[in-house]
Amino acid sequence: MTRTLARTPAADGFRMPGEFERHAGCWMLWPERPDNWRDAARPAQLAFAQVALSIGQFEPVTVGVSALNFTSARTLLPENVRLVELAHDDCWMRDVGPTCVVNDRGVVRGVDWHFNAWGGLNGGLYFPWDQDELVARKVLEIERLARYRAPIINEGGAIHVDGQGTALVTEECLLNPNRNPRLDRAAIEKNLRAYLGVSQVIWLGKGVFNDETDGHIDELACFARPGVVCLTWCDKRRDPQYAISHDAWERLRDARDARGRRLKVVRLPMPGPLYMHAREAHGLITREGTKARTAGERLAGSYANFYIANGGIVMPLLDARTDSLAARRLKRVFPGRRVVGVPAREILLGGGNIHCITQQIPAARRGSGARAQSL
Amino acid sequence: MTRTLARTPAADGFRMPGEFERHAGCWMLWPERPDNWRDAARPAQLAFAQVALSIGQFEPVTVGVSALNFTSARTLLPENVRLVELAHDDCWMRDVGPTCVVNDRGVVRGVDWHFNAWGGLNGGLYFPWDQDELVARKVLEIERLARYRAPIINEGGAIHVDGQGTALVTEECLLNPNRNPRLDRAAIEKNLRAYLGVSQVIWLGKGVFNDETDGHIDELACFARPGVVCLTWCDKRRDPQYAISHDAWERLRDARDARGRRLKVVRLPMPGPLYMHAREAHGLITREGTKARTAGERLAGSYANFYIANGGIVMPLLDARTDSLAARRLKRVFPGRRVVGVPAREILLGGGNIHCITQQIPAARRGSGARAQSL
Repeated sequence: MTRTLARTPAADGFRMPGEFERHAGCWMLWPERPDNWRDAARPAQLAFAQVALSIGQFEPVTVGVSALNFTSARTLLPENVRLVELAHDDCWMRDVGPTCVVNDRGVVRGVDWHFNAWGGLNGGLYFPWDQDELVARKVLEIERLARYRAPIINEGGAIHVDGQGTALVTEECLLNPNRNPRLDRAAIEKNLRAYLGVSQVIWLGKGVFNDETDGHIDELACFARPGVVCLTWCDKRRDPQYAISHDAWERLRDARDARGRRLKVVRLPMPGPLYMHAREAHGLITREGTKARTAGERLAGSYANFYIANGGIVMPLLDARTDSLAARRLKRVFPGRRVVGVPAREILLGGGNIHCITQQIPAARRGSGARAQSL
Repeated sequence: MTRTLARTPAADGFRMPGEFERHAGCWMLWPERPDNWRDAARPAQLAFAQVALSIGQFEPVTVGVSALNFTSARTLLPENVRLVELAHDDCWMRDVGPTCVVNDRGVVRGVDWHFNAWGGLNGGLYFPWDQDELVARKVLEIERLARYRAPIINEGGAIHVDGQGTALVTEECLLNPNRNPRLDRAAIEKNLRAYLGVSQVIWLGKGVFNDETDGHIDELACFARPGVVCLTWCDKRRDPQYAISHDAWERLRDARDARGRRLKVVRLPMPGPLYMHAREAHGLITREGTKARTAGERLAGSYANFYIANGGIVMPLLDARTDSLAARRLKRVFPGRRVVGVPAREILLGGGNIHCITQQIPAARRGSGARAQSL
């Protein structure tokens, strides 16, 4: 069904909705590779299953798994989670899945970005990434959603939107020469306008310290709703995160969104700092061509990496000293949603967190929806 | 989503509808294995693509393909065919896919039979068949249909129903000791009643001559509608098919369906007889554990192996001397449907035909359908 469309979402009247808008459901992938997930990925699989269970309380969840691990994944996942065979190089559905857009009539379509494993042969995290590159298309086929093929390298975790014309990104990632070296800031903005349907791009500088994605926005900050941004905060002057968070705060303070509004910034505490333990690193089966993870490495843990579900927030639990404060902040920012925490250190050890391993499909309006559209 | 249900379709008020009842769509698999499909399966892939294109004129088609061949299959299939990754040992969706059942409220569920590659280690066609065994479950997951796990070995091609309480089967297949050696005729009937929702089983004897499935009914005969059966016919006394068809005709003449009706039998001509050519056999890459196909072998070609789509009949073209007569017969039997022929020798060379490579999903009634049910 994946009709690939010739024009752009903006030209066709489509926009990326905010994550806080209504979803049809959520997609995830199954962690499998033993060079990135310790102990043959079993602890990560248990954590992912807990995330699927938690999101599944709020909206339908689909998990993609390789043919090899289909039956073992089935035994770990709750019955209300849909499991589909879907090959992948690693399990970061936010980054390899489609970025969905909607129009005023409630039709849903998907943007399929080019993907190069967060930097290709110039700082990327593994080689090859050919199966990752097919994930968005496969999701769109199963969901019977038409597809736009964006002509740039990008990842879902590198963009946040308010659904009202504003995108939030980082320079560290989107201007990184290992993504689209021939495109300058203006050219990148042009593509974001065309494929996200935005008119205003707010540029932050760096992402969270030591984030191996080259500073994805979804570790640092996100829109809670139009006009309100959650930001990873750090009060410790000597921590490298201090300057990053303060710079972001200043840029957000000075910014205006697409509708000319100032932004309210909600500060989320930073966990830790957290580091990889020796026993954790020892559980990895290292492999040439994959980024090595070593004991003592600082982990880019962040409470901003939560998932907004229909009626819920599924947030990572990372540090007993800060979890409660982060949860309280999120409850205040999202008064209409139930905040559910999932122990997420095992996900963090692989290089990301709950937002990175999920991707929402916006709800189609009845009668003009995905299914009706394509049949 | 594959909720696996504890009871049986009959106990829950479900029945298998006739293939001539309304469909939500059709599923197929992609031919890939070079030990069964000559010339690395390319000629078969072109024929399967033509079948998908033809059925796609009438109803939505989904094709399952291994991860390895996803992109090459995509280039051969029309854009309105949905392509999904789905590992399989060979591509006989009729036999490895779900047998769907419906209830009076229009809810659709699937029966997942056990599968042993048409005879397991006692005359089966290849080893292993573990991926085939998962196909029905994967289809049901994607379609969000609840699943019954039938406790017997069976294949979709081994059963036909009239949707009004009658099943049509062959003794050669369902009583074959390589399927369910501990179950006698009465025990098999009991399972068919429970999982197809039928009350009457009509037993024919043997299937089409040299049919390697051990005489699937879907090569020999099928219901065109309640009370009307199409039967492969043979007038040549010295052909081994003669006695088989005549025996079937006599049994059908003497039978009554579940509602007490006599059956009208429409005779379809037999193509050929057809044989595998040397140049065809030479294109196979033989492999231990897979049935060998050799030059001169008689092929179990049959016009009864057509697919009934919404508003259409997609029939195999097998022999220029008989194709037109078979098409005329089918047009007369199905006056409300458009009959489309597809050159199908390449499919026949692999051991079956259009009905064997397709599996319909019945239409859910609006508001009580598959999707609404499981979300």
